[in-house]
Amino acid sequence: MIETVSENRCFGGVQGVYSHESQATGTKMTFGLFLPEDAQHGPVPVLWYLSGLTCTHENAMTKAGAQAWAAEHGIALCFPDTSPRGEGVANDDAYDLGQGAGFYVNATENPWAPHFQMWDYVADELPRILDHNFAIDPERQSITGHSMGGHGALTLAMSLPGRYASVSAFSPIANPTASDWGRKQLGAYLGADEDKWRAHDSSILMREKGFEGSVLIDQGASDQFLDLLKPETLAEAMAARRQDGTFRMQKGYDHSYFFVSTFMEEHIAFHAEALHGL
Amino acid sequence: MIETVSENRCFGGVQGVYSHESQATGTKMTFGLFLPEDAQHGPVPVLWYLSGLTCTHENAMTKAGAQAWAAEHGIALCFPDTSPRGEGVANDDAYDLGQGAGFYVNATENPWAPHFQMWDYVADELPRILDHNFAIDPERQSITGHSMGGHGALTLAMSLPGRYASVSAFSPIANPTASDWGRKQLGAYLGADEDKWRAHDSSILMREKGFEGSVLIDQGASDQFLDLLKPETLAEAMAARRQDGTFRMQKGYDHSYFFVSTFMEEHIAFHAEALHGL
Repeated sequence: MIETVSENRCFGGVQGVYSHESQATGTKMTFGLFLPEDAQHGPVPVLWYLSGLTCTHENAMTKAGAQAWAAEHGIALCFPDTSPRGEGVANDDAYDLGQGAGFYVNATENPWAPHFQMWDYVADELPRILDHNFAIDPERQSITGHSMGGHGALTLAMSLPGRYASVSAFSPIANPTASDWGRKQLGAYLGADEDKWRAHDSSILMREKGFEGSVLIDQGASDQFLDLLKPETLAEAMAARRQDGTFRMQKGYDHSYFFVSTFMEEHIAFHAEALHGL
Repeated sequence: MIETVSENRCFGGVQGVYSHESQATGTKMTFGLFLPEDAQHGPVPVLWYLSGLTCTHENAMTKAGAQAWAAEHGIALCFPDTSPRGEGVANDDAYDLGQGAGFYVNATENPWAPHFQMWDYVADELPRILDHNFAIDPERQSITGHSMGGHGALTLAMSLPGRYASVSAFSPIANPTASDWGRKQLGAYLGADEDKWRAHDSSILMREKGFEGSVLIDQGASDQFLDLLKPETLAEAMAARRQDGTFRMQKGYDHSYFFVSTFMEEHIAFHAEALHGL
């Protein structure tokens, strides 16, 4: 049972915002969904966009400029929230832990475990909701994301073979087991046993498993968070694995949505090629 | 003397935010300026984007998706604020009067007159600042805007012949002398003599003067504010005057930036044709 929060016509389609009671998180969750005009004639492929620290479903929906290209390619866009939220949900004063910082894992530790089940939410529950309520073809999914969301996109894509036709990321947190953007959060959510963190590190997954399709990574060379993102670890792992894909270091660009929006056209074209080839 | 608030690389150019002490408003004013890559090689044309009620310089800069097309056409974008701001500046509890609601007029009435001089700010002071500090060609300017900013764009363009090569608007407040979006504000800023309001009503200006170049108007047919915007008055005036231009009623679209961003590509192409023809 989902509620319509808002629907706005956009590039010939509809940018909707919907909410629902989530079984995974035990909270009300809100997500954005762009359906292109093509969805009026039958199910369309969907590109997941996972957002970064402090973001809600709304940031990319309003600032990434993605709808223009999704409309052109006849692809839906799903913008999940980045964590459970609300008064009864654990939180932390830091911007990078708790609400707005779910890191796309299933927390096993208290106080996070009761609600911070973002892996299950994005991997299982929300796809089912899309399938049951909208003209989305569950056989044609791809995934992207920014920063913490790039981490989520890469880890989900490599951990769920066959699920996504393609994966891309904008300035992903690429090696969280070795970064202050990761060690604190994985420790809090998953506990002190670092072996359990490895399934949520895209550089490690890239070395050990890789991705069966193509991978596209864009990273701003003037990103203010390069030391935390550790793109070099992922670039090395991609090359060592002979991963089909492209890693681009973009001169002069920082971590902002001005960077993301600049390269969004190419990311969506990349996913469209994979999705429409299915 | 201007201060750099931020600069982000964006579509090969730079999205900057700058502030300065304004002589027109007697306050510190902040504006956004996108310079395309072409500006590294010499002065480029500029498209002014005037924003609507409650907006700052930032809304369109982050949500309108304009930089993609400005970069493609080699055009700068200037995003002024919508009013003076600050503790010493008069304000009103209503969202549509005072700070965030300057209506692009020079106020003559108290308490507004000391700072609410947005016409002079946008028509005179800020163009000079751009000319002195950035690679902008003052001989090639065009103007657009949304809602209250569409009102500002149209009234400036028709009142300053020869200044702008082209003018467009997204869902402009088109007949403020006959609307609750206008009568209250023009009365407050300009006083009770309604004759003084007429210079700030684009439907009246269209009937009496028109615009020497081409005009493009987009209006959402599902706009929640149609009764306040009064597009029919402007459409009638454009047709009656035989104004060169296009008035489009866009089925299903509302008043949001999802509407603005959808048609931004066509607006910037429209202005580019006029600007690059100079």
